[in-house]
Amino acid sequence: MTEYKLTYFNFSGLGEPIRFILSYMGKEFQDIRISFEEWSQLKKKTPFGKVPFLEIDGKVIHQTIAILRYLAPQAGLAGKNAEEDLEIDMVVGAYGDLAAEFSRYWKTQNPDEKEKLKETIINETIPFYMSKFETILKNNGGYLANGKLSWAELYFVGHSSSIRGAIGLDLNEKYPFWKELTEKVHSLPGIKEWLKK
Amino acid sequence: MTEYKLTYFNFSGLGEPIRFILSYMGKEFQDIRISFEEWSQLKKKTPFGKVPFLEIDGKVIHQTIAILRYLAPQAGLAGKNAEEDLEIDMVVGAYGDLAAEFSRYWKTQNPDEKEKLKETIINETIPFYMSKFETILKNNGGYLANGKLSWAELYFVGHSSSIRGAIGLDLNEKYPFWKELTEKVHSLPGIKEWLKK
Repeated sequence: MTEYKLTYFNFSGLGEPIRFILSYMGKEFQDIRISFEEWSQLKKKTPFGKVPFLEIDGKVIHQTIAILRYLAPQAGLAGKNAEEDLEIDMVVGAYGDLAAEFSRYWKTQNPDEKEKLKETIINETIPFYMSKFETILKNNGGYLANGKLSWAELYFVGHSSSIRGAIGLDLNEKYPFWKELTEKVHSLPGIKEWLKK
Repeated sequence: MTEYKLTYFNFSGLGEPIRFILSYMGKEFQDIRISFEEWSQLKKKTPFGKVPFLEIDGKVIHQTIAILRYLAPQAGLAGKNAEEDLEIDMVVGAYGDLAAEFSRYWKTQNPDEKEKLKETIINETIPFYMSKFETILKNNGGYLANGKLSWAELYFVGHSSSIRGAIGLDLNEKYPFWKELTEKVHSLPGIKEWLKK
């Protein structure tokens, strides 16, 4: 049996989508959650000084998107052809641009700039992306691409649960369509059982 | 004949890798280079308020990585299986993390923080990533993944030519292995001819 060992911090962020896809695939996996103290030691041993990384029978793979793309066909969550994969990659890339803004906020030091950036993200960036995503979901029967479930939903919902902690905005509270998407993913076979643990 | 129409600014950045791959494929394409004034008008009409976007027979596709991934199999620049695609996606993702730092520098307003960030990027971030990429190239016979040319090289070289303008560091001057990689890509059939224009 293939051994999966995921290493990340003890929060959702970039690790949760991988926990989701492995759970959806019905795979048992070691869910290693390191402290920031452990991280300073471990960092040097990782491919690019980053988590998450996933060991599959000892082989280390890294980069959340790369990992999800790799596992997606095995999970039945990839597109059925290049056109469908493109649709998934486009919406995932757009979410990545939004996520980059959270990361920028997180890393900004100057208190005035940080506060201003937070306001821009909450009042402009998030509403802009949310309105785009809402339209896409409407046009795709409640999914993000191709009118069916893909790894994009697992990535969006898995990652976005960190936004509340990062910037103090609960997407599920503010956007009913997002709550619906979250509930859809949270009730998927495998993910549902894993969340109960 | 399929019509390709690329819209981006008049510099390399995220547009150049797409210009490279279309040239490598031997495709004629409209290379629309907009001014910042034009951009403020056009922005609202794009899928997520971003460039580049590529029109293929009128269909708009966006997100540089998604576009490259989509064109790669047609260009003969994709992996031959999921494992090879994973190798490409991992190194591309790592480069994306580096590129995100340039973008963060670019967007930082506070002069002290901006200056400090620039120093960190030049003295720590770039040397760190360059040493990793150098090792990967050594282990892959001068390529970034799977010991052969892929869309990763086009992405790295196409995008990184903007770094000098963005942060004042010429990778080709500082890192001989990078210059070699750049020359390798610049002398590829199709790209060589396109650069001459």
